[in-house]
Order: sequence, then C-alpha cells, then structure tokens
Amino acid sequence: MITIAVDAMGGDYGPQITISGALKCLEMVPDLRLILVGDQEQILPLIPHNLSSFVEVVHTDQWVAMDDKPSKALRGLPNSSMKLAAQCVAEGKADALVSAGNTGALMAISRHVLQTLPGIDRPAIMARLPVREGATYMLDLGANVDCQAEHLYQFAVMGTAFAAANGHVVQPKVALLNVGVESIKGNQQVRLASHQIAQCDALNFIGFVEGNELFSGKADVIVCDGFVGNVALKASESVMRLAVDKIQKRLSVWWLKWLGLFLKPILKGLARELDPTYLNGALLVGLNGIVVKSHGASDEQGFSNAIMQAYREVSNKSNDHFEAIMDQIEF
Amino acid sequence: MITIAVDAMGGDYGPQITISGALKCLEMVPDLRLILVGDQEQILPLIPHNLSSFVEVVHTDQWVAMDDKPSKALRGLPNSSMKLAAQCVAEGKADALVSAGNTGALMAISRHVLQTLPGIDRPAIMARLPVREGATYMLDLGANVDCQAEHLYQFAVMGTAFAAANGHVVQPKVALLNVGVESIKGNQQVRLASHQIAQCDALNFIGFVEGNELFSGKADVIVCDGFVGNVALKASESVMRLAVDKIQKRLSVWWLKWLGLFLKPILKGLARELDPTYLNGALLVGLNGIVVKSHGASDEQGFSNAIMQAYREVSNKSNDHFEAIMDQIEF
Repeated sequence: MITIAVDAMGGDYGPQITISGALKCLEMVPDLRLILVGDQEQILPLIPHNLSSFVEVVHTDQWVAMDDKPSKALRGLPNSSMKLAAQCVAEGKADALVSAGNTGALMAISRHVLQTLPGIDRPAIMARLPVREGATYMLDLGANVDCQAEHLYQFAVMGTAFAAANGHVVQPKVALLNVGVESIKGNQQVRLASHQIAQCDALNFIGFVEGNELFSGKADVIVCDGFVGNVALKASESVMRLAVDKIQKRLSVWWLKWLGLFLKPILKGLARELDPTYLNGALLVGLNGIVVKSHGASDEQGFSNAIMQAYREVSNKSNDHFEAIMDQIEF
Repeated sequence: MITIAVDAMGGDYGPQITISGALKCLEMVPDLRLILVGDQEQILPLIPHNLSSFVEVVHTDQWVAMDDKPSKALRGLPNSSMKLAAQCVAEGKADALVSAGNTGALMAISRHVLQTLPGIDRPAIMARLPVREGATYMLDLGANVDCQAEHLYQFAVMGTAFAAANGHVVQPKVALLNVGVESIKGNQQVRLASHQIAQCDALNFIGFVEGNELFSGKADVIVCDGFVGNVALKASESVMRLAVDKIQKRLSVWWLKWLGLFLKPILKGLARELDPTYLNGALLVGLNGIVVKSHGASDEQGFSNAIMQAYREVSNKSNDHFEAIMDQIEF
C-alpha cells in the first residue's frame, strides 16, 4: 500500500483541481491511499461515497497563499495544509508529499520538516527533460536562485545519484550548463564548480554544455543554478507555445485548414511533453522524503500526473537507492 | 553609400563562409561597399572580377581564434582582422562592423576601439525575438555573465532607447526577467535593479516577467544578465530542434509520410525564425558605432543576414536615434 499526502489547498485553483486530480489516481492504481490535507468543508463534498475508504481528510483552516513569503509560510502558519502534509511524511504516515503550492514555501517547509540528506545544504528542484533518446535530469529549476560552486557540486552529486538510482545509466554523464564550452567561459561559480566536480571520482563529468544541448540528450544530468534553470525551462515552454501558434497561423488558409485540425492534437501533446513541470511535477531532491511539486497552474490531469510521479518514486524505492548511492559519495 | 567592415576571418568556417555571405549582399543592395579584413591570400581568390570594385581588402595575417581569451585578443593580437575592422568604424571608414568571431573578443575589442556611450559601463548583446505580434528586444544575451543591478538598469535604458529609436513603440514596455512575478522573487541583483528601473521616469517598467513570457510579446524590452539570456535563448533553439525531430518521427509511419514532406519546410523555417542569433546576427549595443555579431556557426545565408541587419541599422540611422534618446535619459 502506498500513501500519498496531498496539500489540497495548494495551486492556483485549490481543492477544485487537486481533489479531482487526486481521485483520478485512485482509479488508476489499486494500492494507493490518499491523505488530503486542507479545509474539510471544501474537500468533503468533492469526494464520492465509493472512494471515501481510500482517502483520509486531515482538516486545517490554514494554507499558504501563492504569494506568501517562505518565512511567513514557515513561521506564521504553523498548521498550514502544506506543513501538515509534510509532517505526514516525516512521521511515516505517508510515503510522499505532493503540492502545487508556492515553490519557496514548499522548499522552506520541506527542508524544515523533512531535513536535508547528509552533505546536502539545500534541496533542489529536478525534472526529467524529454530528449531525443533516454532522459536528461536537470537541476536546479528554481529552488535556489543564488548558488555557490559548492551548491552546484552538490546538485551534480544528487543528479548523478538519482539518474543512477533510476537504473537508466551506470555512470551518468554530468554536465554544467554554461554560456560556452571552453574552460574560460562562464561566471566564477560555474568555473569553480567545474573544478570541484572534475575532481570527484564518483562523478562522470563531461564538462560544460550550452543551452542548445539541453534537449539533445548529450548529458544524463545537467546542473545549473535555480535562476538559470527556471528561466531556461520556461523559455522552452514559451517558444513551443509560439511555435504551435505560428504553425496554426500558417495553416489557417482555407486549403490547409484540414491539416491544422489534424496537427493540432499532435502539437498540443508535444507542447505538454516539452513542459516537464506541467507534465509530471518536479521532484524536490536532497530531502529525507519524497516531495513532488506540481505546476501551480496545473489542471486536473497535470495534478494527477504529479501524484502518479510520486507514486512511481515510492514504488521504485528510488529514494532508498538514491540515499544508498549518496552514502557512497564522499563530500 | 553604406560601407560595412567585415571580419573575414571570424566564425567557425572563416573566409569560405564570410566572403560568400558578404558578396551575396552586394547583389541585394546597390549602395553597399565592403571592407573585407583578413588574409588576402584566402580572400582574393574568392572575389569575382565583376564585384571587385565594390570591395576593399585590408590584409592582415593575425586573427582571433574562437577559443582565444578576450585579453589575448585585445593585447596579444594588435593587428587582428577583428580589431582592424573595428578601427575602420572608429576612423569613419566604415559605418558598421560585422563579425562571426569569438564573442568575448568582439566585446573587448569593440569596447576598446569604439568606446561605450556616456553612462554605459558595458556593451550588451541584444536580439529581436520573434513574438506573436510586434517584436521584443532582449538583452543581454551573453556579453556579461556577471551583472550588478546597475548594469541591468543600463540594459533597460539601452533596450528602451533602441526600441523607441526603431519606431515600433513610443513608450516601450520594459520587463526584468525573473523566476516569478512577485516582488519577493529572484536574486538580489534583480530585485535591486527593479527598484532602480521603477524610479526612472523615462522608463516604462512593467515589472518582472518569467521565462514563459519570453516569446509572448508582453514586453517590448526584456532585460536579464548575459548568462541567463544566453542559456534561455539557446534552450529555446534546442527545444525547437527537438520539436521538429519529434513531429517528423510521429509522421514517419507510411500513411503520414506525405504530411511530413509537406511540413518539413514549414518547421525548418520556423526553427530558423526562432533562432534570432542565427537569423539576423545580434547587435552589440552601448557602443559608439554599430557592431553586429553573427553566429559562429553561421552558414553563408546566416552571415549575409547579419550584414543586411548592419546595413539596415545604418540606413535607418538607428544609432543616431538611439544616442539622441540616450542623451535624454538621466543616469
């Protein structure tokens, strides 16, 4: 049996989306149980009778707003739905936490409640990018907007451990995202981190990659600070939306309209596939526990994908593998 | 008559590409003259007799390699093709400089030879992004990997002056690229810069935008540091290449193959349109003179586009307008 704690109040739309997204998962996997944390007056009416034995509702009248400061979320809201859901994981009542809430607050609360793994200063947001073949894990995607070389090094370790734990590759190729591939390129943090990563025998460092290798599959793990990673991934979303628009516009003359109708679902599917945060939720790595961050603007499908990702992480025991590999790496 | 100085030795392919790209422009516009700077033994055989009266070849046996440090390019190569071409602009012999060479070296040499405009500490690389409607000017795209708030402010001023000088908009909307739109988001530089930009009456500041607004047309000018800008733009290229691949793959079953044949040119054209550096060359702004940086890997068409962009900048007198507007803005 796998139990997932859901911050029912998080995200732009709250329970309306999170509950229906969560309930959808119950239909997909029989061994899933849910702890739904939030305002029971909003949650209970959304749960059909036949599913009530698979869910537990934990009531609270506090929740983190999308624009709350992390410090307020952490100290000013001792019983927020996000925090109570994290506590379920810390106390072993749940195997994972899923939230579509405020990223900064989720970071701060997870770090406070679950603690980071030994040797890790800060958790990072990681996603699996779609690439030509296989997968590329990219981190950080926005949890840490100011990173020192040491943090980038820790991200490389976490990315490697995760990629290896997921069994895709024995010696994951790690690259640092930079503005050029030559050793003189980049800022000081990136250059320092490259020396540090290169010196670690447990890491298979392939050097710098530029933004144009992000989706090429050249590296199994791509490391960058959270500012760069966040902007790069969202820029990719943005350009795909523009591409879909432009293709539709070019096909809008009457003798090509039928082609547009035909292509639209292909293109929309593709745009979603290329938006990892939307697609699956992003993993917060480096914590004693599995935490999945769903996109704040997720619809029902997006939120249910995030829960399914958490479910897979739990059933694959990826955090155990991850911690075992982390233990072997010297810091 | 418009004269453009061409660093014939720059770029991954040197004269083979730069000369043929440059000569192509002579056929397009009758009032163009070229100063081709580089190794005359490589250049002269590439110039057909009928075009020889439109070109002047300035010989040198020094040029900047793609991996030379800026400091070496500046001080160790006093007669590099890049530097001599910049001197043509400084001395008034040419109206603009175009190079596909090493970005760092082009920055350092342009700054040294042409000097920055009053109030501007560092030139920035700017490109016009394709957006839904109109255009968005984005800077910096890789010239400055470490920026203080003051530099971001100067980029906002330059972007505004350029967008206004190009006549597209009266009060260009300026936005700062960030990881969120709330005022608490981002790193210190970005938050400080937002206060500074907001306080300047001459700037129409609309606040933060995230990466997913890059190609939406929400802002006329998007400001970021060169690391973030470079990675974001190249990531967009990368995802478009993946999209083209994926669409082709989905259409590779026999009963859809004809659709693939039909779509391929549309998609390829789109990928190029979404790669501004490739498309037109990027402008180095903030200098006493027009400098266009073409993509290092440009083919003949790409390099000729960069020269045509320089030609348009000269004929539109955009640098004069730009400097006039810059003069009105208090620093």
